[in-house]
Amino acid sequence: MPSSDLPRFDTAALRAQDAAHHLHPFTDTQSLNASGTRIIVRGAGVRIWDSDGHEIIDGMSGLWCVNLGYGRQDLVDAATRQMQTLPFYNAFFKTTTVPAIELASLLTEIAPPGFQHVFFTNSGSEGNDTIIRLVRRYWDLMGQPRRKTIISRRNAYHGSTLGGASLGGMSGMHAQGDLPIPGIVHIDQPYQLQHGHAGESAEHFGLRAASWLEAKIRELGPENVAAFIGEPVQGAGGVIIPPASYWPEIQRICDHYGILLVSDEVICGFGRLGHWFGCQHPHIGTRPDLITFAKGVTSGYLPLGGVLVGERIAKVLIERGGEFQHGFTYSGHPTCCAVAVANVQAMRREGVIERVAQDLAPYLATAFGTLADHPLVGDVQSLGMVAGLVLYKDKASRTLFDAELGVGYRCRDHCFQNGVVMRAVEERMIIAPPLVMTHEDIDEMVRRIRRSLDDTWAGLRADGLI
Amino acid sequence: MPSSDLPRFDTAALRAQDAAHHLHPFTDTQSLNASGTRIIVRGAGVRIWDSDGHEIIDGMSGLWCVNLGYGRQDLVDAATRQMQTLPFYNAFFKTTTVPAIELASLLTEIAPPGFQHVFFTNSGSEGNDTIIRLVRRYWDLMGQPRRKTIISRRNAYHGSTLGGASLGGMSGMHAQGDLPIPGIVHIDQPYQLQHGHAGESAEHFGLRAASWLEAKIRELGPENVAAFIGEPVQGAGGVIIPPASYWPEIQRICDHYGILLVSDEVICGFGRLGHWFGCQHPHIGTRPDLITFAKGVTSGYLPLGGVLVGERIAKVLIERGGEFQHGFTYSGHPTCCAVAVANVQAMRREGVIERVAQDLAPYLATAFGTLADHPLVGDVQSLGMVAGLVLYKDKASRTLFDAELGVGYRCRDHCFQNGVVMRAVEERMIIAPPLVMTHEDIDEMVRRIRRSLDDTWAGLRADGLI
Repeated sequence: MPSSDLPRFDTAALRAQDAAHHLHPFTDTQSLNASGTRIIVRGAGVRIWDSDGHEIIDGMSGLWCVNLGYGRQDLVDAATRQMQTLPFYNAFFKTTTVPAIELASLLTEIAPPGFQHVFFTNSGSEGNDTIIRLVRRYWDLMGQPRRKTIISRRNAYHGSTLGGASLGGMSGMHAQGDLPIPGIVHIDQPYQLQHGHAGESAEHFGLRAASWLEAKIRELGPENVAAFIGEPVQGAGGVIIPPASYWPEIQRICDHYGILLVSDEVICGFGRLGHWFGCQHPHIGTRPDLITFAKGVTSGYLPLGGVLVGERIAKVLIERGGEFQHGFTYSGHPTCCAVAVANVQAMRREGVIERVAQDLAPYLATAFGTLADHPLVGDVQSLGMVAGLVLYKDKASRTLFDAELGVGYRCRDHCFQNGVVMRAVEERMIIAPPLVMTHEDIDEMVRRIRRSLDDTWAGLRADGLI
Repeated sequence: MPSSDLPRFDTAALRAQDAAHHLHPFTDTQSLNASGTRIIVRGAGVRIWDSDGHEIIDGMSGLWCVNLGYGRQDLVDAATRQMQTLPFYNAFFKTTTVPAIELASLLTEIAPPGFQHVFFTNSGSEGNDTIIRLVRRYWDLMGQPRRKTIISRRNAYHGSTLGGASLGGMSGMHAQGDLPIPGIVHIDQPYQLQHGHAGESAEHFGLRAASWLEAKIRELGPENVAAFIGEPVQGAGGVIIPPASYWPEIQRICDHYGILLVSDEVICGFGRLGHWFGCQHPHIGTRPDLITFAKGVTSGYLPLGGVLVGERIAKVLIERGGEFQHGFTYSGHPTCCAVAVANVQAMRREGVIERVAQDLAPYLATAFGTLADHPLVGDVQSLGMVAGLVLYKDKASRTLFDAELGVGYRCRDHCFQNGVVMRAVEERMIIAPPLVMTHEDIDEMVRRIRRSLDDTWAGLRADGLI
């Protein structure tokens, strides 16, 4: 789209208003206000435009969510129709709405076997928060009330409510607001760059990383452990793709000790890994008891999240539980559910997920893989439509830059300048592009990333940092 | 609307699907599935219709949220336009969108003096959860890290995340999932029926109820107390309207001990009490440091919540805080923000709030007040557009029914049958109708409530319970 087709925006005035009134998430407001925000004003397909008319390929799908891309009239129409008919009604007090029924039903069709029930929330944060109350309630009803502790991983991300942030393993979040809450403990993540031994095979590392779960269960006593939670691939932690040996061993350990396995599919669900849910990818291959979802369920067009509750748990909750004292005003919001139904139906009708698995993911792996020859770049990896690389100061000796230099943020800023959204997470640069890219989109995205890596390299040279 | 204009629904099939797959919030699923859900399929103005064509006056505004009523084309158009342009983009990573800027700016225009900053969430639950991390972060930055404890009230409702449910004072919620989390304590609510002394004046009771806060602060040590949180009028607790002496005394105590005052305006905000925020009603009259909002901000058409952050706190967070490590993917969701902007502008343009204060609230008070002559009914009260009454077994002696009889639920079911939504909370029956009712709507609603009270009375007589 030529920038002349965009309405005119007074960027400076909008920036000033934003600085004066808007506290952004995960942001140093003082520093942001000094530099000024970038105002995104339009999206179409896999591209977005800012208020100055710059066109940008969205390599992060909004925030891991715009799986079908921007400008889908079918999703807009679903919202419009539902809002005109019944924008909202609640699901408390013995009432329900047609879109909530349709979505619950549809999600159990696409879920792995053994999932027949859905609990709706507004977000992945609320979904993971719900998990804590759900698993504790389950074990109470099973007559094992001591099973309260949930094991998660350092550098995991499970949302930002007190419950979600506690499940998550982000030390920066834990340092603000007295987290984690009691009853949540963390083991190390399966990230070989950080925890691998010299010369260790990926397979061996994966088994060793999984063994940390078993050690923690024994330390706590299995009779005190309620569940283990993990993202199939850690997203916000930096697209940490565990070795193929990791998840099957985690599954074996959970089975052995009778511990519930929770798959946080907020990022990996709805086609991101070329399957409806990440746990179904052969590289993961788990049989979770509970699945958290959000983001891709609506392609981010409207907020919606929830928990798929496996029958092992649902049966107990329903038959023995009485009232589950939990829920949100917008649990099953009819307009959000209507958009989710349209989104899932479109994914099905258009074969989006099959195309990711058979065509796009391999194409991305190859195209993104070409970046491995760049002097800054090592450890290029992808799975489905997530990919990451490591910025090295010296590839040969695998020396990283000092964290304080913020080399990733330099690179991210170059990416924005060069028209591609890429995210920096410490030493890692990551992408999670829309599932509707063409081969040409992928090629162009990778070209822009290479240009940004070149600019980063040149800047570091100019500053005498390499 | 004649029921013949509605599309046909296969109610039995939809019910079966709902029972098979949908776990409703705050519901005993087994019992619900035995009786079957009521499926709401359409809304217009202050009325909703179920799948069998029954017309019902929505005396609860959805769930305290559809303040402008159903079928507002301007709100639909705002969503449609934004979704076509840019359905979603995030506010992380130095970016923002025009609707988020406009809404942040607009909210600070209508907020009480001293509020210039907004943090966005998806829901009131996430808003109150945010409060916990915000106030603790504030006191850390102020060099008083021991100020962690937040004081709330029994029978308060502040949402259903672990944080929100802990702030809330609902014993049933606390019993499931190991709540409250540490650092949250509760005092008794200002409910004279429960805690008043014989012959005590409302004014005296209000002061005495406020004194429980002072006693708790002294017990904990003021140097350990971060904040007090309360709804101006407790909503889900049963429309508990405190005496006029209560809130000014709470404000004095907070000021005296330097404790932050948080006004949870999820229900009371956006015109419910005839002011933009409930704290501005002369009966309340507080000067909060933080305000939680949700529901009415979009009239429930799309999910949105947040926190208005007073300058005392915002200044410290921004100037000394660095990155506030908190946020949600959908913080500042452009489509939800666009609907909120349209909703607030419509409320302004149409003088909705002034009309509530000057006309509708007094009219409701008078019309609802006429129910006081019913043999079952006592303690009829209202403030703005919330109202409640108590079901008495014997009014003269102020004898309540045994809670196990569920007389409120009987009455609620009669209300649905008679075409009005009214909510039961233990001995109390409550309403919070849309702010766009006509006098005729109010009259008709009260007629249907009276009919339902008559039916309840007749049923209790037939069962020998009175």
